[in-house]
Amino acid sequence: MNPGHLEYRRMLEFWFEFASPYSYIAAMRIQQLCDGAAVRVAWKPFMLGPIFEMQGWGDSHFNLNPLRGGYMWRDLERLTAKFGFPWKKPSAFPRSSALASKIACTFDEEPWCGDFIRRVFVANFGEDRDISTPEVVSEILSGAGRDPQAAIDAATSAENRGLLRANTERAIQLGIFGAPNCVVNGELFWGEEALEDAIAWSKTSAT
Amino acid sequence: MNPGHLEYRRMLEFWFEFASPYSYIAAMRIQQLCDGAAVRVAWKPFMLGPIFEMQGWGDSHFNLNPLRGGYMWRDLERLTAKFGFPWKKPSAFPRSSALASKIACTFDEEPWCGDFIRRVFVANFGEDRDISTPEVVSEILSGAGRDPQAAIDAATSAENRGLLRANTERAIQLGIFGAPNCVVNGELFWGEEALEDAIAWSKTSAT
Repeated sequence: MNPGHLEYRRMLEFWFEFASPYSYIAAMRIQQLCDGAAVRVAWKPFMLGPIFEMQGWGDSHFNLNPLRGGYMWRDLERLTAKFGFPWKKPSAFPRSSALASKIACTFDEEPWCGDFIRRVFVANFGEDRDISTPEVVSEILSGAGRDPQAAIDAATSAENRGLLRANTERAIQLGIFGAPNCVVNGELFWGEEALEDAIAWSKTSAT
Repeated sequence: MNPGHLEYRRMLEFWFEFASPYSYIAAMRIQQLCDGAAVRVAWKPFMLGPIFEMQGWGDSHFNLNPLRGGYMWRDLERLTAKFGFPWKKPSAFPRSSALASKIACTFDEEPWCGDFIRRVFVANFGEDRDISTPEVVSEILSGAGRDPQAAIDAATSAENRGLLRANTERAIQLGIFGAPNCVVNGELFWGEEALEDAIAWSKTSAT
């Protein structure tokens, strides 16, 4: 065993969707919270679309329910101000996250993956950029110090392109119905406000 | 002016529904949090039923969406354990809160109202008692040191029986779509996890 790979014994799965506003807040916070608690983050991008469809929704419930959606946008404005994260209301919502998610699935164990994930979220919710396009995703990859075409080729290869679907199927098995989520020792915590409870759970349940 | 009535300059409206599980958690916490921040609580019971109907729901979304509902019950189990509140999953959900809510509306400025409210929530979610019945509500009133019949008579009198409907109409005007909520200086905070943010808001916005 390589001691450099031992790192933390405890692990938290962070299940997120790049199109999800509250996933943005959580994705910006989770690494620092986990580092402070000696918990390793496992990045778990998945697709909310099929899960919303299972609940009978053809769109984000934030679009289907204007009251709920209006509250969410105001809440995001407040939360980004509270935490000091960039905020610019997306002019399109929700944006397709398929390409960015496939890249995050393919490189989920690379040390740069968290940085890439945060950059995608900032592009979508902090800069109103269209993260569904290869152009924007390429710029984000460059910003994260990667070769864009090599990363996109790998993520869309026959070998890797099924990873996102597999993650989504696993999310359904876990009982996930929204985003973001933390899964710790089989326990599901939904919502960006549950991050601290999820981390606390990893402490009490670790053996 | 009577100095005894000056109390706190800042005020937080706590909008809740006795049938709402997350309102239970929030109702048990709000008085202590507000006391610690020198903020006065204004108790605002309202009916979720008409508001859910406006959103096209004929029942609680926790019943309509089993995934969401299953998560909520587990979450309540965890939250009550975390805060040390009594917990016994209600054998009927949601229970009609009309009588208890009318009493809370009628006596919302009485010093015993908060105690009554917490006792109703504990009966519903900590003891699985049927708070929709005059018998249980009477016992709760007695426990809070009140004359049950006098309180019920006042709350169901011609003078007061419209207060709950008026609160519900006001809730709709405020853009409320669920429970619990805090309203501070016109700003809406939804969810039991937003209590601290609501109190912080009252501090920054008070003049």
